[in-house]
Amino acid sequence: MLRERMSVMRLTVLTGAVVATLVASTNAMAQALKDVRVADTPLVLKAQGSFFVGGQKVEQTQGELGDLGPGGHITINQMYVRYMVPQGGEGNVPVVMVHGATLTGKSWETTPDGRMGWDEYFVRQGHPVYVPDQVGRGRSGFNQAVFNNVRAGSAPSATLPRWIRFSDEVVWPNFRFGSKPDAPFGDSQFPVTAVEELSKQGVPDVSFGGVPTPNPTLQALSDLASQVNGAVLMGHSQSGAFPLGAALLNPAVARGLVLIEPGGCPPNYNDEQIKTLAALPVLVVFGDHRDLATGIGIRPSWQLSFEGCQALVGRLKAAGGQAEMLGPAETNIPGNSHMIMQDKNNLQIADLILRWIDTRVTKRAGDAR
Amino acid sequence: MLRERMSVMRLTVLTGAVVATLVASTNAMAQALKDVRVADTPLVLKAQGSFFVGGQKVEQTQGELGDLGPGGHITINQMYVRYMVPQGGEGNVPVVMVHGATLTGKSWETTPDGRMGWDEYFVRQGHPVYVPDQVGRGRSGFNQAVFNNVRAGSAPSATLPRWIRFSDEVVWPNFRFGSKPDAPFGDSQFPVTAVEELSKQGVPDVSFGGVPTPNPTLQALSDLASQVNGAVLMGHSQSGAFPLGAALLNPAVARGLVLIEPGGCPPNYNDEQIKTLAALPVLVVFGDHRDLATGIGIRPSWQLSFEGCQALVGRLKAAGGQAEMLGPAETNIPGNSHMIMQDKNNLQIADLILRWIDTRVTKRAGDAR
Repeated sequence: MLRERMSVMRLTVLTGAVVATLVASTNAMAQALKDVRVADTPLVLKAQGSFFVGGQKVEQTQGELGDLGPGGHITINQMYVRYMVPQGGEGNVPVVMVHGATLTGKSWETTPDGRMGWDEYFVRQGHPVYVPDQVGRGRSGFNQAVFNNVRAGSAPSATLPRWIRFSDEVVWPNFRFGSKPDAPFGDSQFPVTAVEELSKQGVPDVSFGGVPTPNPTLQALSDLASQVNGAVLMGHSQSGAFPLGAALLNPAVARGLVLIEPGGCPPNYNDEQIKTLAALPVLVVFGDHRDLATGIGIRPSWQLSFEGCQALVGRLKAAGGQAEMLGPAETNIPGNSHMIMQDKNNLQIADLILRWIDTRVTKRAGDAR
Repeated sequence: MLRERMSVMRLTVLTGAVVATLVASTNAMAQALKDVRVADTPLVLKAQGSFFVGGQKVEQTQGELGDLGPGGHITINQMYVRYMVPQGGEGNVPVVMVHGATLTGKSWETTPDGRMGWDEYFVRQGHPVYVPDQVGRGRSGFNQAVFNNVRAGSAPSATLPRWIRFSDEVVWPNFRFGSKPDAPFGDSQFPVTAVEELSKQGVPDVSFGGVPTPNPTLQALSDLASQVNGAVLMGHSQSGAFPLGAALLNPAVARGLVLIEPGGCPPNYNDEQIKTLAALPVLVVFGDHRDLATGIGIRPSWQLSFEGCQALVGRLKAAGGQAEMLGPAETNIPGNSHMIMQDKNNLQIADLILRWIDTRVTKRAGDAR
């Protein structure tokens, strides 16, 4: 531990970080593989693996590539996707699960307290599952050129996009575990004893200025859905509305849209867009305690996001759509957090979504994978 | 496609990249899920999922966290690990596979041309497999503070670490597919028709200055091996010597060390270190065409890396160790590339490593997972 601590202090000096105070972290970092639980029955897969969707070829200079080798072409804006197909489930509706801000596809895997994630659970319930890392994050990478140009002095530092992370302290109110750190709601469904494991899921997020507009993840999701003969598209938080955007690019391949705690639902769709989306099953899932002040300036409370989505659901229903909200008012389940796929009752919520898929999402002839 | 192209051009303007010329990429990007092959028999897993090893807690300012929320603590330098345990194989020797520079754990998954990766193959041969993303990359994230400080003008741009990527052009000689792009060796084992898919595996790499020294991945690998009751540690290229470094931190948990095409083998171990490493089975795997000029200044040819590892193997053997080289001279297999785990004969090479594990690596009482 001393060795690690020294290393970080050295890094601080090297990189010129202004504040990087270390706190004692022995307890916080104690959790490990031993806490990961094993299911009672084996997982039988017809297939698993990974691949990429999309990507553009660009030419960059030696400096932009970090000066280790000569300049040339690289691929950027590709989207990494990991998938599992259950044995015997290759004809069932595929589900694509997209993570939120400052996170990666890890969101859907083993929970912070070592329980089964939605990725495996949906596979065990018969669905092929595809988990991407958004363009700009995780195994999808990002465009590093501008950072190397600023380092070399060939671009002004103001051209740098910012990298976002959320502090552990703001996660408590923003993800609605409790009003402040270590003060969980009495009915909180989040496994707060494992909140340090959630902290480790955080990665820097360059979405706010460092990926193209529109976000290439939207086209990649649409292309992915097309490749699997149509899919249920599920987004979370910052990507909560991505299923809507991807569906508008190619409605034929979006079999259903599941918006988990979306940061917002677009308020300005025109009538044609509403008509398109009204032809698709839409489910908006929210947790509890939405009135809590988040501590995040751009979103003072999640109730505002909730109400925006309620309005969209209203417009879709008025246009004849099947849109519906799923929250404590509908389920009578209290205490769910923003990280509902990791909550202690995550499989109970998953079952509600699976039932919605069974009810609302139509199977297609020729289903494969 | 036009939409995507426009987006990239817009990003170029926004971020101030000096050169980001787009080339027509329709053909290059045509490969997709349809090219991913499905195995003849299902994969039966006792367990799969992901978790983190290590990590330090630091306090950062609002600006360092990207200004979306208030300052506070975050975790950095944690290592993401994805794992699969075969049904009935929980008592077998676990294998940890670490990727090389500008890459992520994806290296070991589905190959660029859609064949089975070593991750799944080793599981199918009975071994629990653990695939990390190195600290600083992929789902392990990195410390973003200095980038935000430079953006804000509170740190000089010269404090930025550089981000490395390899151009597609230099990959051909450096990874030894052929002496120049689209000119593969007649006996090349790399699936060069899918080289564009390899290009998509590239992510920016901040290892050269942007992660602490010693690299926290070393301690994390040692800790991971400890958590699984000892493991075979396998590194590749930039991480090729990591198994040696991790073993020296805690030799008791390193059951065997497999160095795949290491960028170098340390020339300066003292006698005590050599004695420690000589007690462990060590296998160094190299491919063919090592005399080719790489186009990378810091490593003019891979033959230099090969010879450095030959020297280390010699020292270990002189100290009574079981170290051995595995390359064309031993196997009579020509044409293997630097990306040997993705080569067309990747499973043939895997079988040689598996046989080495069966022969050299001792099973332990009380094996679990």
